[in-house]
Amino acid sequence: MSPIITLTTDFGLTGHYVAQMKGAILSINPAAQLIDITHAIGPQNVRQGAVAMRDATAMFPMGSVHVGVVDPGVGTARKIVYAEIDGRHYIAPDNGLLGLVQREATNVTRIIAVENRKYWREAVSTTFHGRDIMAPVAAHVSLGVDPTDLGKTLTAMQTLDWPEPLVTPSAAQGEIVEIDHFGNAITNLRQEHLPGATPQHWGQVEILAGSSLRISGLSATYGERASGAGAALIGSGGYLEIAVVGGSAAERFSLQVGDAVTVCWSAKASPTPR
Amino acid sequence: MSPIITLTTDFGLTGHYVAQMKGAILSINPAAQLIDITHAIGPQNVRQGAVAMRDATAMFPMGSVHVGVVDPGVGTARKIVYAEIDGRHYIAPDNGLLGLVQREATNVTRIIAVENRKYWREAVSTTFHGRDIMAPVAAHVSLGVDPTDLGKTLTAMQTLDWPEPLVTPSAAQGEIVEIDHFGNAITNLRQEHLPGATPQHWGQVEILAGSSLRISGLSATYGERASGAGAALIGSGGYLEIAVVGGSAAERFSLQVGDAVTVCWSAKASPTPR
Amino acid sequence: MSPIITLTTDFGLTGHYVAQMKGAILSINPAAQLIDITHAIGPQNVRQGAVAMRDATAMFPMGSVHVGVVDPGVGTARKIVYAEIDGRHYIAPDNGLLGLVQREATNVTRIIAVENRKYWREAVSTTFHGRDIMAPVAAHVSLGVDPTDLGKTLTAMQTLDWPEPLVTPSAAQGEIVEIDHFGNAITNLRQEHLPGATPQHWGQVEILAGSSLRISGLSATYGERASGAGAALIGSGGYLEIAVVGGSAAERFSLQVGDAVTVCWSAKASPTPR
Repeated sequence: MSPIITLTTDFGLTGHYVAQMKGAILSINPAAQLIDITHAIGPQNVRQGAVAMRDATAMFPMGSVHVGVVDPGVGTARKIVYAEIDGRHYIAPDNGLLGLVQREATNVTRIIAVENRKYWREAVSTTFHGRDIMAPVAAHVSLGVDPTDLGKTLTAMQTLDWPEPLVTPSAAQGEIVEIDHFGNAITNLRQEHLPGATPQHWGQVEILAGSSLRISGLSATYGERASGAGAALIGSGGYLEIAVVGGSAAERFSLQVGDAVTVCWSAKASPTPR
Repeated sequence: MSPIITLTTDFGLTGHYVAQMKGAILSINPAAQLIDITHAIGPQNVRQGAVAMRDATAMFPMGSVHVGVVDPGVGTARKIVYAEIDGRHYIAPDNGLLGLVQREATNVTRIIAVENRKYWREAVSTTFHGRDIMAPVAAHVSLGVDPTDLGKTLTAMQTLDWPEPLVTPSAAQGEIVEIDHFGNAITNLRQEHLPGATPQHWGQVEILAGSSLRISGLSATYGERASGAGAALIGSGGYLEIAVVGGSAAERFSLQVGDAVTVCWSAKASPTPR
Repeated sequence: MSPIITLTTDFGLTGHYVAQMKGAILSINPAAQLIDITHAIGPQNVRQGAVAMRDATAMFPMGSVHVGVVDPGVGTARKIVYAEIDGRHYIAPDNGLLGLVQREATNVTRIIAVENRKYWREAVSTTFHGRDIMAPVAAHVSLGVDPTDLGKTLTAMQTLDWPEPLVTPSAAQGEIVEIDHFGNAITNLRQEHLPGATPQHWGQVEILAGSSLRISGLSATYGERASGAGAALIGSGGYLEIAVVGGSAAERFSLQVGDAVTVCWSAKASPTPR
């Protein structure tokens, strides 16, 4: 069975750096099944990479290997880590790129500093550790190398600064953490942050963001409202998102990553007795 | 042998939704060979998706599985269908996305409503049926599940509104249905719509489109005319296309999808006796 | 073991021509492992394709098959060639696209004109030889066909016009040959062209380009200088490149492919005795 190795980078869509990483992997494990998560992470935008790795790698089977390369510190003293998280293998610079995978994890079984040059390319450049260190290490991991042979065991990885939602008895405030290709604005608010916005009370909820956005009521899906209307719903990743039916919410309401989003429910609707 | 599963979506090039679909497929069939047809279909542009699926899936071997996700109605009552067409397997929302594959088909062997939740992801979101229904169903189909177990057999799928060429004894009128990456404008006119424009009469043919385009004569290939010249030829998909040698016909002649294209041949050249 | 076939084209990121090539390959060898090098080569920019093929294909294992399609002469009398170079297989139009792979090669074992229609698609279009000739030939090569059966042996391929660095005792002049996704400007200057710029003398080196760029000293990696500073270093492909830490050198210094880059070292630093 082909072991799966995924790649998440900020290398862009147009160059050949991703292919060079794939060549380095296949030179060690020609049977690896290589899957692109995305290569359109903003240059050196560790947080955006962390969101993509959180949302996408969770869909892959146990035993899969996930490499993330958003690496502003390449060539400096920053570490590269291997981590075993919820049955999957991760390799990335230790700069918070695995911060959200780690945050959502049930079990972080092992964290190891990638130090043993035996598993690296023979010639290691100072600017492309994705190809020269992370790709070959991923290939060796996919072949079943004992992870403890990669380097010394660590007790922790770098964490990622991440906005914590603020929840009161009648409202929650979060922020937009991702704008997707359709212009949907995805927040850091999950159902658990919206105790008063249970499906039976969706009609009474108000969603506010930016200077112009005010949506009444949560929806189950896009198609419930008229074309062009704003809608708010719990998206496929489990997070509250703001959409425009058949359009782009980001454009229509000038939404950006980092904008605050407030969800209010009537105190009456709240399950918490006053 | 790895079963082939292709993906055609409007998810764009930058996000991680496509990767989530791939993860869902590989979680069920880790041996699947995953091929991207394109993810740059315009948001919710079912017709553009239908053209891509028609042109690209026909190149794949018998037994391959083709998933299309251009799905404005996700989460509403629209059906999802499985179809067996000319020896290939198709899974898509029942909104016309398979309309052109069906139109060109020799045999539509089977159409089935995808209804049996046994082959879906356990948790099905209301906004991402590509990942939660179509991807897992495709994986099960690639593993050889009996298609009749997916749901009840249907007698028909949604068709797609599609412009019919108008053919007279001396001319044919069609329209531009696709602009490719090189700026070539591809029409809905095939050789069969151009009975007077057989290769031996190519020199006498006139092609007209938009307000400014008038090309005399059909060419066999791009390189026949001078750099910068307009050319019209039967392209690699069997359709008349308008090109500019070493340039973009769409830009040069301001061509767009939907523009009328007229091909005139002298009545003398027509094989139909007057 | 899955044979590896890579693809380098100017077909762009949005269409389905690449997928058609993949379908043509998999119809002959369904076990092929298909890897995209890049499809964002500028339309008909043979030189840019040659750089990508040089840098990326060298990373793949012996025996891999590399197809390049940047083919302004498609359908005209230009040849298509198969070449065996340093243990890898190459298939491309004979227009210089393999010129840099060939230039850097230790051994060009075999060059063959791709002429035997037995290994082509049955119906060959005049405009898409990537799909109808090169893809099927690559598939057959990956299955182990005897290359001499593809056509007659040639003594040479087309070469590529390529700027030769000018090296004096105190300076070298080269030019920018590629701008990468991060805006790094990569030159044609290797360490061998910079005999006076050995690591122990990096501090005394000056790098000049365009009207505004002047960088003092070579760096080992991006992280050595302050954010926003210009840096020059030997990049991961072995060529001098100009970067801006955390930014785009191409934008900051208005650099373009073709711009001259001069590296000066003090005569004192030169290892050549006066």
